Order: sequence, then structure tokens, then C-alpha cells
Amino acid sequence: MNEPTKIITITTDFGLNDPYLGMMQGVMLKINPNLQMVGLCCNIPEFSIMEAAFALNCGYNFFPSGSIHLVVVDPGVGTKRKPLLVSTPHYHFIAPDNGVLSFIYASEVECQVREITNPRYFHHPVSSTFHGRDIFGPAAAWLSTGTAPQEFGPLLTEYERLPIPEATFVKGTVGGQIMYIDRFGNLITNIERNFLEKCRGQAKKKKFYLQTEKLKIDKHTKAYRYLEGSVEPFTLFGGTGYLEIALYRQNAAKALGLGIGENLKLVFTD
Amino acid sequence: MNEPTKIITITTDFGLNDPYLGMMQGVMLKINPNLQMVGLCCNIPEFSIMEAAFALNCGYNFFPSGSIHLVVVDPGVGTKRKPLLVSTPHYHFIAPDNGVLSFIYASEVECQVREITNPRYFHHPVSSTFHGRDIFGPAAAWLSTGTAPQEFGPLLTEYERLPIPEATFVKGTVGGQIMYIDRFGNLITNIERNFLEKCRGQAKKKKFYLQTEKLKIDKHTKAYRYLEGSVEPFTLFGGTGYLEIALYRQNAAKALGLGIGENLKLVFTD
Amino acid sequence: MNEPTKIITITTDFGLNDPYLGMMQGVMLKINPNLQMVGLCCNIPEFSIMEAAFALNCGYNFFPSGSIHLVVVDPGVGTKRKPLLVSTPHYHFIAPDNGVLSFIYASEVECQVREITNPRYFHHPVSSTFHGRDIFGPAAAWLSTGTAPQEFGPLLTEYERLPIPEATFVKGTVGGQIMYIDRFGNLITNIERNFLEKCRGQAKKKKFYLQTEKLKIDKHTKAYRYLEGSVEPFTLFGGTGYLEIALYRQNAAKALGLGIGENLKLVFTD
Repeated sequence: MNEPTKIITITTDFGLNDPYLGMMQGVMLKINPNLQMVGLCCNIPEFSIMEAAFALNCGYNFFPSGSIHLVVVDPGVGTKRKPLLVSTPHYHFIAPDNGVLSFIYASEVECQVREITNPRYFHHPVSSTFHGRDIFGPAAAWLSTGTAPQEFGPLLTEYERLPIPEATFVKGTVGGQIMYIDRFGNLITNIERNFLEKCRGQAKKKKFYLQTEKLKIDKHTKAYRYLEGSVEPFTLFGGTGYLEIALYRQNAAKALGLGIGENLKLVFTD
Repeated sequence: MNEPTKIITITTDFGLNDPYLGMMQGVMLKINPNLQMVGLCCNIPEFSIMEAAFALNCGYNFFPSGSIHLVVVDPGVGTKRKPLLVSTPHYHFIAPDNGVLSFIYASEVECQVREITNPRYFHHPVSSTFHGRDIFGPAAAWLSTGTAPQEFGPLLTEYERLPIPEATFVKGTVGGQIMYIDRFGNLITNIERNFLEKCRGQAKKKKFYLQTEKLKIDKHTKAYRYLEGSVEPFTLFGGTGYLEIALYRQNAAKALGLGIGENLKLVFTD
Repeated sequence: MNEPTKIITITTDFGLNDPYLGMMQGVMLKINPNLQMVGLCCNIPEFSIMEAAFALNCGYNFFPSGSIHLVVVDPGVGTKRKPLLVSTPHYHFIAPDNGVLSFIYASEVECQVREITNPRYFHHPVSSTFHGRDIFGPAAAWLSTGTAPQEFGPLLTEYERLPIPEATFVKGTVGGQIMYIDRFGNLITNIERNFLEKCRGQAKKKKFYLQTEKLKIDKHTKAYRYLEGSVEPFTLFGGTGYLEIALYRQNAAKALGLGIGENLKLVFTD
């Protein structure tokens, strides 16, 4: 990551109806007119730190090494929560210190976490209600011009980590949770493919079914279309790499009445 | 089309709420960081191949020669449906072989259709649920770097063509259908301006009215505002080049209760 | 503004579901493939000239000097309303002459207003229903290549100015109005921070409350989070720079039943 990159991804709950996203991008372009800005997820439900954290976690690794991930879901704007610059061997993350980077801390071995304090890299005057435009966006843009991380502020050793609902494996059963619902209504769990395969190996069984409070789902497939015509829910590994519950060409979330936070058990069978 | 372009348009049903579009773009930027990616229509209703085909057909010709049109509406992802690269004298199209390019086959005289088979141009590991990220997007990005079409795979002679509801002219009457509803609620038909003019010439009449099952529409205008204040539906040629049914500052689709697939007759009169 | 810029912002009611925005961008890229196009606000409610004017006004100043602001909310497309190119010392604006630039005329001291008449800079054939693609977009793209404003057409002295509801200060009381509702449900008024401070100085009082027809709001805060847990509405200065009415993590517009156009009184107290 020696040479400056110009790719900045944006994850935010600003949505696409208001001028906020544009205003932030305008300020960034003042600093670096050659940016390549890409929306990673710009329509996160209002204030939903966990959904932003999950979406970021699904996507960040697919960008070129050196990319800067700007995350602005910031219900605490204007209070004492700190603005952060987190650097890993491949990426930079700029976000408020509210736990939205919790997945990053958990999966990246090396994280240098800094507080952004240097007013030289702020957009002035700094408001108390729009730090995306006044602090986070400008920091991302300055970083893209080659400004060194240490210029932005001091290293931190304490920062907010939200409890990530991690899949468990106890007594031969995987415990999980629904983390995210996509536009197709697929219910995405926190059970990763590799984790499931490891547990399956330990359980020495081939098949499994998924149990929610009200529902048993025992069909698993590789591709949505394989269950063409079926009206039963099924599981498969979706584009996020996590196990998800789906219905053939129907919105599973709506049809099954399941939502984020729902607990799941995955039971192995012969 | 000798020199590589960097413009790639995207038409997809991924929508703008989830990280899928961003993940695909991230992989593309890994291959070519200098891409100019433009959303042609990124919020196609889920699985709607025909609406994507129609939107693509309305828009593709307005882009610079050499542009690559990436189309990912792919309910059959992970099954045997082939990934395609279709080259015409001015454009490339990358899409699943599910008929989403049917309008292109119909309107472009020269189409070289290839199956994308060369794993060198895939993003690995290739999932069975997200070929936009793993096959289609990467192919578009590699193509944008100057990779020759023949590198991607062999020519095909058979590929999916969906029956396109084409406007007809029988016994002095044009038969048509509603193809698309836009955000304004305008009901866009499959009756093109040139076709209508040709039919009108043959009918040797000046005026016409449009007849749906329940409704007769006999006002035709050049611009929406000309019917300011009117509460009657009218027809005009919209931005797509097709005849559409509209209401002055109202959502015609909702107010008139008409939808995609509705049959129409256009009758010429003196 | 001597050297051509490549940044063009887009404010429009085309929305993000249809191919219209993409078609306009395609034509622009034909003229200048090196454009940096940024959505300032692409999902303005249909035909809402005043909301587009307000959003543009909030955002335009945050872009680099030399940026071109393209505004296409154009219910009068195809009629005699003129296409305009308005140049100020720092920016260009391209829009229909329907008042969507009223805030610009009010706040910019020097405005050169031209009618775009030169067909050399149109996309042909020019339709009567899509001037975003055929006139406005191409003009913005040609301007970005360095074409001089006077090439586009003659100066105008008369052009449409909509009555902007301006905040007043009469008998120690500020009169205002709700102008815009954002995705969070914050109700944004036309009372700017500087204006409020000036009035407060004249009134020689420290505090104030806001009175709508049904509601008295006497909590004012600096940041949303400061009223964590509160179920009472409060006022604060949001990212737009205007006073807004908000509720802690709730949609104030929905919860309070207030909408655009609602009149407000702001009364100073000790």
C-alpha cells in the first residue's frame, strides 16, 4: 500500500433521496478531484449500525488493496464519540467509533486504530450534525491523496466493539442468528460456509436441517433455481458467503415472517 | 472498436440497498481501476428479465461506441444457463443466456455470441449464487482492459431468445402491448414512433385512438404539459421512443389500473 | 474558472429505477468520456421544482469551484420554457427556466443567465419529452470540454423566479416554513443559522421556542444524540445549515403529522 489509491467505497444510511451523500462527495472532490467513489451500501436503514457493519464485512474484501472504506452511520454525531481511522495491511477504514467496524476488528489480524484529531484535515466550519461531510469524508479524501495515517491523529488502544452474534457449535448443533435481509427477502444468517463445513466434519454427518422457533427447513441447495416451482423454504450459501434462508422467487422474510435477530439451530443428521 | 474503452454500463436487479452491486464493482475495479461505471438501470424488479431487456434496449444506443453493457438479472445463477459475451459493431454485452438480450439480437444485424468459458477471467472461487461478481463483472472488466472477445470462449449458434411482444399491423389496426411502467407511472407500449408513422402512412389517415380492454384514449399530444389541467389520459411519444399512456401530473398506471402485458389496439381515424 | 472541469452534479426527479438517468449520462459520455458525474439528488419527488431548488441550494456550494450543476426537473419539457445556462463566479448551472434556480438567483451576486439555443450542442433528433438527454445533459457535457458559455446562446434579462418562502423577523418573532423532509423524517425549515443569530441579537434574548399550528417545541440542542431517550420533538441545526425539527431516532414528519409548507413562528424568550 505504498502508492496512494483513488478508490473510496461508501457505506451509509444517508440514503439516495437527499443531498447529504452528494454534499459529502462534493467536499471530497474539492480535496481530490480524481477520486473513484463507489457506493458499497448507501441506503442502510436509518441508524442501523449492525446492518452497516454486516454489509461492510460482506463487501470490503472484494475491493482492490489500498481502497479506503468510508462508513458513515453515525447516530452519535456531535457527541464525544471519536472519529476513527483504522488501517489494516490492505485497507483503510474511516468511521465513527460506535462499533460499526466490529467485524473488521474481529477478522483482521493487524488493525492500527487512530483517532482523527488533526483539524487540518477537517472541512471548516465543523458542524455538530454532519461529520460525514465535515470530518469523515474529508479524512478519506486526504488519505487518498497520500497523506500518511499518522498525520490524522494518535493511536488508540480502546475503542468500541459491539458484541457480534457469532455462530456457535455446542453438542453437535450449530447455533446462529439472522443478521440481514436483502432486497430479494433472503434471510442471511451468521453461519459461514467454512464454519459449517468444519462443524459438519466434526459431527461426522452429511446432512442438516435448520430449525427456527416455528419452522423446520430441511432442503438445502446450491442454487436458487434448483428449487424452481417449490413453495417450501430452503437454505443455500448466498453471495455473502453465509447460509441464508430463501424461497423460490418469493420474499422469504415476508412469507415466513422471520426477521433480523431471530435465533436458529442447525442440526446435523445422517 | 480497436482501442479499449473504460465505460461499462450496469443493468441489474441487485437494487441499491444491499452490498451486492458494490461487491461486483469492487471485483471489477481490482481488474481495471480506471473503469467508468454507469448505472443504466440498477433497480430492475427482482428476476424481471423482460423489464431488464426493455430498459437495456431503450438505453444502450445512447452510450459511446465501444461501451460494454453488463446485464445481471440472473434467476438461473448456478445452473447450466451459459454466461454470454455478445459483440456487435458498436458494443459488447455481457449477460446470462436467459433471453435478457433478446431485443439486441432482434435489432442488431451483426451479433457475435460467445459463451464465456475461460476460467482465467473468472473471480475465484466461483460461487453458485453470485455470478455477477464471479463471472459477468470480471468478464466486463477484463474486456475493458483490451482482452479480445475470442479469449473468453467459443462462438455459439444457439442461445435463448424470448418472444418479444412486437407491435403488429393487421387490417389497418396496430396491435400492441404495455411493456414497462416508469417512476412517473407512464405506461410505455411496444409501439415505436417509426412503426406508427409507417402504419399511419399505409392507413392513409391522420388521427388515431388507443383502445384497451376498458378504455378509449383519443387524445394524443407532443409534450406532457400541453394537457395541463386535463384529467383525461393521453398518449405521447416519451423519452424511450415508444408510445406511452400518461396522465397530467398523475401516475397513469395507478389511476387507470393498467399494467405490464395489457393488450392495446390502435385504430386510425380521419 | 479558466480551465475546464470535469465534475458535473446531477439533480433530477428521474429517480433510480428507470433507464432515463443512464440514457442522459450515456449521451454526456459520448461528448466527454472523462466526466466525473456525481448525483447531488437524483430522486427528487416527481415534478417538485421547489424541493429540487432547495436540495440544490443546500448542496451546490460544497463542490469544487468550476463544477457544473445539471438540474433536470422539467414538467414543462417540450413547451416554450427555455433551457438555461447560468454562470456565477464559481459554478455553472444548467436547468429549465421554471424557477428551479430561484435560490441561486437570490444568493449569488453575479449571475449571467443565457438561453441555450445553439443546436450544435444538442443531441439530435431533439425529442419533445426528454430534454435532459437531448439538451440539458449535452450542454453540461460540452461545457465540461471547455466550450465557452457565450457559444450556447444569448444573455437573458427575464427568467422565472419562484417566490422563495423567506424567513421573516417582525415584532421580535421569526416567521418561517417547512421546506423539505429528509429520509430520517427531519423537518427542515427556511430559518438559517446566521439569520436566527442576527434576530436573536436584535431581540436581546437567549432562548426561543418554535410554534406550529398545533405544537410548541421548546427544546433546542446541538446534536441528535443529546436527546437520547426523549420522546419530545426538538430543534437543531442540521447538515443543511437550516433549523430543523427532529425526534430522537424517530421520523418526526410522520410522528408529528407535519409537512412541507407548514408555517412556523419562532418566539424568543429569556
